[in-house]
Amino acid sequence: MFTKPDPATSSSTLQIRVRFCETDLMKIVHHAVYFTYFEAGRVEWLRRRGVTYSAWAEQGTHLPVAEVSAQYKLPAKFDDLLSLTTTLTELRSYSLRFAYLLKRGDAEIARAETRLACINDAGKLIPFPQATRDVLQSAETAAASPIFG
Amino acid sequence: MFTKPDPATSSSTLQIRVRFCETDLMKIVHHAVYFTYFEAGRVEWLRRRGVTYSAWAEQGTHLPVAEVSAQYKLPAKFDDLLSLTTTLTELRSYSLRFAYLLKRGDAEIARAETRLACINDAGKLIPFPQATRDVLQSAETAAASPIFG
Amino acid sequence: MFTKPDPATSSSTLQIRVRFCETDLMKIVHHAVYFTYFEAGRVEWLRRRGVTYSAWAEQGTHLPVAEVSAQYKLPAKFDDLLSLTTTLTELRSYSLRFAYLLKRGDAEIARAETRLACINDAGKLIPFPQATRDVLQSAETAAASPIFG
Amino acid sequence: MFTKPDPATSSSTLQIRVRFCETDLMKIVHHAVYFTYFEAGRVEWLRRRGVTYSAWAEQGTHLPVAEVSAQYKLPAKFDDLLSLTTTLTELRSYSLRFAYLLKRGDAEIARAETRLACINDAGKLIPFPQATRDVLQSAETAAASPIFG
Repeated sequence: MFTKPDPATSSSTLQIRVRFCETDLMKIVHHAVYFTYFEAGRVEWLRRRGVTYSAWAEQGTHLPVAEVSAQYKLPAKFDDLLSLTTTLTELRSYSLRFAYLLKRGDAEIARAETRLACINDAGKLIPFPQATRDVLQSAETAAASPIFG
Repeated sequence: MFTKPDPATSSSTLQIRVRFCETDLMKIVHHAVYFTYFEAGRVEWLRRRGVTYSAWAEQGTHLPVAEVSAQYKLPAKFDDLLSLTTTLTELRSYSLRFAYLLKRGDAEIARAETRLACINDAGKLIPFPQATRDVLQSAETAAASPIFG
Repeated sequence: MFTKPDPATSSSTLQIRVRFCETDLMKIVHHAVYFTYFEAGRVEWLRRRGVTYSAWAEQGTHLPVAEVSAQYKLPAKFDDLLSLTTTLTELRSYSLRFAYLLKRGDAEIARAETRLACINDAGKLIPFPQATRDVLQSAETAAASPIFG
Repeated sequence: MFTKPDPATSSSTLQIRVRFCETDLMKIVHHAVYFTYFEAGRVEWLRRRGVTYSAWAEQGTHLPVAEVSAQYKLPAKFDDLLSLTTTLTELRSYSLRFAYLLKRGDAEIARAETRLACINDAGKLIPFPQATRDVLQSAETAAASPIFG
C-alpha cells in the first residue's frame, strides 16, 4: 500500500541554532551532525500533528532509519540560525520517507531524504495502524513548541 | 584581579529540548551531552548581553574550557523540555567561571561548573579587555532569541 | 578526468569497537554515528598509503563531504567489534568517491557511499595534484596502525 | 563499606586515536568528547578483568555516572594517538570512582575523575555483589583487545 501525502499539509518548518560542539576543524558543521537536525525535524513534524515520538517509543513503536542520503551545498557555521523544512513524501505499509531542505535565509545548505521502517520492541516490522496513518496525513494542528531558547 | 559578579544580573535561563540522538542505551541523556547544553547556555548568556560568541571566535578570541565538574541528580530523557540557568560566578583577569543549574520543572537534573580561559588565536593567555569586562558584568539586554523551534 | 581505481589495491579494512556513547535509546548505534565510522575508515585508508590526513588539513587541503548515502541492514550494538572495508571507487579531477561495507563477522550491518570534494583553505575547489593522484591509486604500504586498544 | 584498591593492580592503559569528528572550530578536541574517551577507558578496564560491560547492561546492572570533574592541560588534536590510563581509586558499597590520566607521549593532556553508581533496570541503587567486588579488585587478566585499527 502506497500513499503519496498531500503536499499542502505534509511539511513543517523549524529553526535550528548551530551549536559550537557541532563544528569541526574545518570550522563548519560536521556532515554527520546534519542527520541529528533531520531527526529533530521529524520529531517536531510529529509533535505538530499531535504525536509525541517519545510516547511511541515508550509504547514500543520505533521508526529506525533504514536508508539515508544527503547532498551538502553550502557549509553551515557556528551560531547560524537555520530553517529546516521536513516533508513526508511517501507513506507505505511498513515504512515512510521524509525529505529535508535546510536553508540559511535564502541560501540552500543541504537536501536530504530518509526512509524509516516501523518496528516493534522485538525489532519486527509492523504495519502502521490506520490511526497512525491518519495522523501522518493530517496537517499541523499543534502550535510550534518552544524548543530551545 | 578578581570580580564577583552581581547575582542580580549574572544569570540567564534558556530552554533545551532533549534530542533523540542525545540518549544512550540506558534510555537517558548521555552524561557527556550535558556539557553541550552548558556550552549552549553560555553562548546564549553572551548573546543576551549583546555578544555573539562566533564574532569573538572570528576575531581570534577564544574561551577554551580549562576545568569542569558536574553532579548528575536525575536522568533527563528524550524530548524533555529542560530549563538551564547559566550564571557567571567569577571573573578573573585571564579566566572566568560559570555555574549551571539544569531542571525539568521543579526537579533538579544536574549542577555543574566550568572555568574558561581567555586565549588568542596563537593559544596564548590574554587578559579580558575592559570593554569585555563591562559586557560580562552587564544585565541581559537582548531579548531571548528564537533558537530552535 | 575520471579514473576507476584498481579493485586489487583500492580497499582497506579496519576494526571499530562500538562505544557506549554511540548507542541511543533503541539500544542500537545511532544512524548518524556510522558516518563517523566511515570517516575514520577513510582517514585510516589514507594512512595506510602514507598520507596523514591531518598533515593535508594543516597544509590547507580539505576534503569536505559533498554527498552521502547509506543503507542500514542490521543494527550494530554497544561493544560490537565491527569490520569496516573502505574502497576508493572513483577518482575525478576535483572529487573522489569512497564506498563502505560495515560487517559484524559475516553479517552485513551497513553499506554507504560518500563523495568528497577537494578544496583549499579559502573553500575553493582545486584539482588533485598528480602526486596526490598517485598516492590515491597506490596499494597499502604502511602497516595497520594501532589506533584504539 | 569502603575499599581503597591496590595501586599495583588497579590501572589499565589503552590507546585512543582522535577522530576528525571529535574536533571543533578551535581545531582541538571538544571538551565534552573527553568523557567519551574516559568511558571507553573504563569499558576496556573491565574487559581486561574479564568483564564485558555490555553483558552487565543486558543483565540489568548499570553504572550511571553520578559525578565528574576534569582539568584540561593541553589541547588534543585530530589524529593524535593518545594514551589513557584508567585507575579504580575507590570502591564503595553502591558506587565506585575512577581516575583518568590522558597523555600524548610524555605531555599531559587532561586529568579527570568520575563517580559511578550501581543501579538495576528499575533505576534503584544496588550494592555490588561480592563476585563483582572481587573482579573489580583483580589485576588485568585478559590481554588488551584489538579495538580499533
